[in-house]
Amino acid sequence: MTTPHHLSDLHAALRPSVIDLGLGHPDPTLLPLDAIRRASARAVARYGAHALGYGYATGPGPLSDWLRHRIAQHEGRAPDADEIAITGGISHALDQLITLCTKPGDVAMVESPTYHLAVRILRDRPLKLAAVPYNADGPDVAALSALIGRLKQEGERPRLLYCVPTFNNPTGKCWSDAVRREVVQLAVREGFLIVEDDAYRELAYDGPTPSSLWSIAPAGSVVRLGSFSKSLAPGMRVGWITADRDVIARYATCGLMDSGGGPNQFAAMAVAAYCEAGEFDPQVAQLRAAYRTRRDALLNAIAIHLPAGCEVHTPAGGFFVWLRLPGVSARRLLPTAEAMGVSFVPGQRFFCDGQGGEDAIRLAFTLYPPAQLQEAVRRLAQAVQAHDQN
Amino acid sequence: MTTPHHLSDLHAALRPSVIDLGLGHPDPTLLPLDAIRRASARAVARYGAHALGYGYATGPGPLSDWLRHRIAQHEGRAPDADEIAITGGISHALDQLITLCTKPGDVAMVESPTYHLAVRILRDRPLKLAAVPYNADGPDVAALSALIGRLKQEGERPRLLYCVPTFNNPTGKCWSDAVRREVVQLAVREGFLIVEDDAYRELAYDGPTPSSLWSIAPAGSVVRLGSFSKSLAPGMRVGWITADRDVIARYATCGLMDSGGGPNQFAAMAVAAYCEAGEFDPQVAQLRAAYRTRRDALLNAIAIHLPAGCEVHTPAGGFFVWLRLPGVSARRLLPTAEAMGVSFVPGQRFFCDGQGGEDAIRLAFTLYPPAQLQEAVRRLAQAVQAHDQN
Repeated sequence: MTTPHHLSDLHAALRPSVIDLGLGHPDPTLLPLDAIRRASARAVARYGAHALGYGYATGPGPLSDWLRHRIAQHEGRAPDADEIAITGGISHALDQLITLCTKPGDVAMVESPTYHLAVRILRDRPLKLAAVPYNADGPDVAALSALIGRLKQEGERPRLLYCVPTFNNPTGKCWSDAVRREVVQLAVREGFLIVEDDAYRELAYDGPTPSSLWSIAPAGSVVRLGSFSKSLAPGMRVGWITADRDVIARYATCGLMDSGGGPNQFAAMAVAAYCEAGEFDPQVAQLRAAYRTRRDALLNAIAIHLPAGCEVHTPAGGFFVWLRLPGVSARRLLPTAEAMGVSFVPGQRFFCDGQGGEDAIRLAFTLYPPAQLQEAVRRLAQAVQAHDQN
Repeated sequence: MTTPHHLSDLHAALRPSVIDLGLGHPDPTLLPLDAIRRASARAVARYGAHALGYGYATGPGPLSDWLRHRIAQHEGRAPDADEIAITGGISHALDQLITLCTKPGDVAMVESPTYHLAVRILRDRPLKLAAVPYNADGPDVAALSALIGRLKQEGERPRLLYCVPTFNNPTGKCWSDAVRREVVQLAVREGFLIVEDDAYRELAYDGPTPSSLWSIAPAGSVVRLGSFSKSLAPGMRVGWITADRDVIARYATCGLMDSGGGPNQFAAMAVAAYCEAGEFDPQVAQLRAAYRTRRDALLNAIAIHLPAGCEVHTPAGGFFVWLRLPGVSARRLLPTAEAMGVSFVPGQRFFCDGQGGEDAIRLAFTLYPPAQLQEAVRRLAQAVQAHDQN
């Protein structure tokens, strides 16, 4: 995300003439304002001082209990009470995990491309970064294995793999079941921790969501980071971790929790009251329908307006379409496109070593209704045409 | 704090026969439940999607604006808009500052005694710790200066001083104005950062609160951490930083903010709506009156029941009384006291090197009404007597 001062001004005020498909935001008009307002009031009425006190380090029981039940239903693996903790969102959880599970100089491995802002969180630490190339169906497992071997030979400590296996940011792709199994096996064998960013799990448009790595992994290998930011509202700042009990215990007994209490107790209680009332599933169903329509509108417009050589993959979920424009420099295209009233994120930003994605762009289809997505693609096509003529 | 599963069970359920003066919690019965419930609803009604989106990295404008106005009125120094940021509470802000402002191996200096759970946050990092002895009116400035000289001579990097200058946890004391000026001057001269934990500023019982270090410091030397946890409700997880614009910029542009958005947008908007309605000052006045009565009840009971040799200082604000019981081992007293139905935190826990406070205990006077505080001291006196006879 970027940091506009007023979120609902995005459409109208920030860059009035630009349709910004660079922003990975939910549409503010799809946020369930009234339901959250009512849930907050119910949380205070029902839980009283529980909702406003320091709270338990692993988060309020009502929210953990609801999540455990839902995860068991949807993922076929039920976390025990000591295998789940509430967080202040995925970024917060990632930040804490780095503090608690890494030493200075450890190597953090990432997919290439990967979510660029997670890389910024990693870069705020004294860690080394290593990139793993992405194949059609997930990271290149042989390359990952070779990387780890090389790092260990050099005396380095490959400590964790940060990844977005499901409805990936930026590509929209999913790892295949085979790659999921192989990477988990590799983590067990080589002793690194998989940090699974599972932000988009609820937003599946064409069928069931693939199994999380956490749900298929043996003990000790995967920490899965979930979130209500995409499925409910980013401003609640509420997410969760499912992991082995030793990771949860380390998270729950760290200095920050011991001093500060449960992360975000009031908001977590409001989310609990929202979920307990059965409001989550209908909201997710509404988002799926709206975003599926938008995804299809964007892809149809790409098929109609963009040159035949461009490559695009239909994401089965999430927020993003990854579009390759062979022969085009995305970074040089950007100013032309913005002059014509459309923006995007150039693909290179998602490669932590800057090597790759030169001809790719990431387009988010969640923030705007279909007609604006179509107009955005028309403008993009004009920009590509103008670019070709230079 | 400790981590009871259900805050309002504290009195009745957790340790039913023990009055626990070890817990530095506000009294749950003094939390303004209804006002916060109404404020949350107003925040959603007034700010709509602004209240539920990612939010601006330095927090919602309405809360920053209210704070800037209030700080200007009360402290005689008005932070500019780029000199303040909203945080997820003091522990969260301290955690982030360590990530952003320290390198592995840097030395973090603390008062001795100091808030023990902040030390736990520091210990979760690859930092070194150094303790500065506390005199009657604040840290021993000559000793602090000598410590820094020694550290630098040894090639160490004394990077920050974490301190609670106002209504200290655990001692309840305040630094004198002279010590405040001298420590700020030393920080400027020696180039270390003062991290001022200002959690208790609003809770003054006998007169005006001393000036914050931030308000008297030249640019670049002090980061002041404020909080609504003690003055409103811990579960909101909302605090703020006032600091120089380069520190605020570093905080606002770090990877965590860039990815996650403003910390705790919804709760911060609810606090904004609460404060904008003029509800904060009456709430603080009510807390001051209640806690002043409790402090006095505790001190009177100590004067009546405890041996003449014990030493106690009347805290002018905050949550805590620091009681010295010469000749008594606080750690050995604790099990006796708990068997008799009262608990406390032994003084040694607040000395990060474990050296000091052997005959001291910290008593919190905020969680229980006066009658229970008096009963607690009666039990404590019995325990001391039993201890003397062993």
